[in-house]
Amino acid sequence: MVAEEGIVFVGKKPAINYVMATTLQINRGVKKIVLKARGRSISRAVDVAEITRLKYFPGKLKITDLRTGTEEIIDENGSRRDISVIEIEMTQV
Amino acid sequence: MVAEEGIVFVGKKPAINYVMATTLQINRGVKKIVLKARGRSISRAVDVAEITRLKYFPGKLKITDLRTGTEEIIDENGSRRDISVIEIEMTQV
Repeated sequence: MVAEEGIVFVGKKPAINYVMATTLQINRGVKKIVLKARGRSISRAVDVAEITRLKYFPGKLKITDLRTGTEEIIDENGSRRDISVIEIEMTQV
Repeated sequence: MVAEEGIVFVGKKPAINYVMATTLQINRGVKKIVLKARGRSISRAVDVAEITRLKYFPGKLKITDLRTGTEEIIDENGSRRDISVIEIEMTQV
């Protein structure tokens, strides 16, 4: 059985790595993918969504939800700081 | 008369500069602000939205729309490339 929803965490690697991870899940039959990213990786998550949508699944994949938020993280020195997060939900049409 | 909608282009300066530009417009009575950013500045635009919303106008400003897209740009060498864009619409509640 294939999961209905897949999650891809977008970090600091090149965008194409996450495009491939997303493509793999879609080709396995996952209908909905959520890309999640924090901080500086947010720009990359948008790149991943746009590249996957336009180049790999033209007309077949749609951004169905976009959410931003703020999370509190504890850094290496033990001090707290806020970091922006994004979630980009893409669904096969 | 105050414009109903303001636009803030988020670029490479520190996020606080754009937070201030947004705050200024809201304090002048603009009801809806659209933050626009391209490429690596997308992460910063999300930071600007989150900081303005949570720290400067808690409970008074809401993200009412989030759009991503792709634009074609011509770089210094005259070659074309695609760049991701984001628009974050915030409205006073």
